[in-house]
Amino acid sequence: MIELVGFDADDTLWRSQDYFDDAQAQFEAVISRYVDLADAHLHDCMLATERRNISLFGYGVKGMVLSMIETAVAITNERISGGDIHRLVALGKAILQQPVELLPGIRDAVQAVAAQHPLVLITKGDLFHQEAKVCSSGLSALFHRIEIVSEKDPSTYARVLAECGVAAAAFVMVGNSLRSDIAPVLALGGYGVHVPYHRTWALEAEADLGEDVSRMRTVTEPVHIAAAIRGFSG
Amino acid sequence: MIELVGFDADDTLWRSQDYFDDAQAQFEAVISRYVDLADAHLHDCMLATERRNISLFGYGVKGMVLSMIETAVAITNERISGGDIHRLVALGKAILQQPVELLPGIRDAVQAVAAQHPLVLITKGDLFHQEAKVCSSGLSALFHRIEIVSEKDPSTYARVLAECGVAAAAFVMVGNSLRSDIAPVLALGGYGVHVPYHRTWALEAEADLGEDVSRMRTVTEPVHIAAAIRGFSG
Repeated sequence: MIELVGFDADDTLWRSQDYFDDAQAQFEAVISRYVDLADAHLHDCMLATERRNISLFGYGVKGMVLSMIETAVAITNERISGGDIHRLVALGKAILQQPVELLPGIRDAVQAVAAQHPLVLITKGDLFHQEAKVCSSGLSALFHRIEIVSEKDPSTYARVLAECGVAAAAFVMVGNSLRSDIAPVLALGGYGVHVPYHRTWALEAEADLGEDVSRMRTVTEPVHIAAAIRGFSG
Repeated sequence: MIELVGFDADDTLWRSQDYFDDAQAQFEAVISRYVDLADAHLHDCMLATERRNISLFGYGVKGMVLSMIETAVAITNERISGGDIHRLVALGKAILQQPVELLPGIRDAVQAVAAQHPLVLITKGDLFHQEAKVCSSGLSALFHRIEIVSEKDPSTYARVLAECGVAAAAFVMVGNSLRSDIAPVLALGGYGVHVPYHRTWALEAEADLGEDVSRMRTVTEPVHIAAAIRGFSG
């Protein structure tokens, strides 16, 4: 019954949000030298800037840094120094240079699923950075196909499934984001295995699962992914 | 004999480098308020920064802006103001918001080729920006397949051709860049139609065509593309 399994990458296969959160903490440390953070609502300002810029920048590190710089200039009333601006660029470079760190147990979990079904990796974000991470993850040989997309919405999943020649009702998506990995696939009539990650970016936390939750399972550890997928065929 | 024709996008289908050159001119205007441009070698500094960052940022507007900011901080000895940093971010946003402007004659030229062969669009750069441009170009229905890639080297073309089930000897690539559009396809045994653009980014101008130039034609106007492709089948 299940013919194809999709995996998300960031915070499903490997660590990602932690690095963004660390960068955010260092961003706050830089800004705290100019303004009292208790009054400045830095987090809200940054989120508002990101929300405004997402339709222009898309997802990924470079867009985050540009939004940080824009936020920093505004919140310091243009007082931020060139040296500190350079520190913000360096925060982004540090994430881009971060070695890929697989999440515990994920390699075995992906191999167990690959023994039963063909796999497709479906990840959104910056093409260049995502390709580099896939390449150095050591997991790419387990995937039949790798799709780096600009947005994970129902139309994107429908396109990928059409190219793979698989009906949504024969597809399971595995991922940490209800909004990007689970809800759009449920909406198409497919299945979802939600593997929550301990941290989620605020723009990813918003999801409407509708009445399709019977086609979704939540597992807390990667070791349970294969069994959850088998459950959909029973 | 020819089974598939590839088209590059930036500066082949639509204007692109002009916007980057304009941004560069405005960048110089900003920097000239801090340093004497005659002494500063701004262009060389920017190119060196881009060359250093390309393996981390890839191609596209966001990486260009980050390299501009890095160059600006260094060349002004950190004296650049927050307001001027914000102007550099705005230069990038202006390019990202620029409406797509097709090059003269290209729509008819692509339609003429599409009447004879299936077409694939192969473009490198930022996934998000390229998708937006393809979408608003009005040309996407003419293409069988759209490939946005991180680098246009022989291995990328080999992968795309394998996915399309076409041998390199049955493939023609049409584009303005000898380095990215022509040389790698000739190296695989394929054909190239070079349509030079009046401006070329310095990092695109470097190409070694080897001894394969007999499989390449240069045309000065899009209207001659279809005839050049027919010439390869004769």
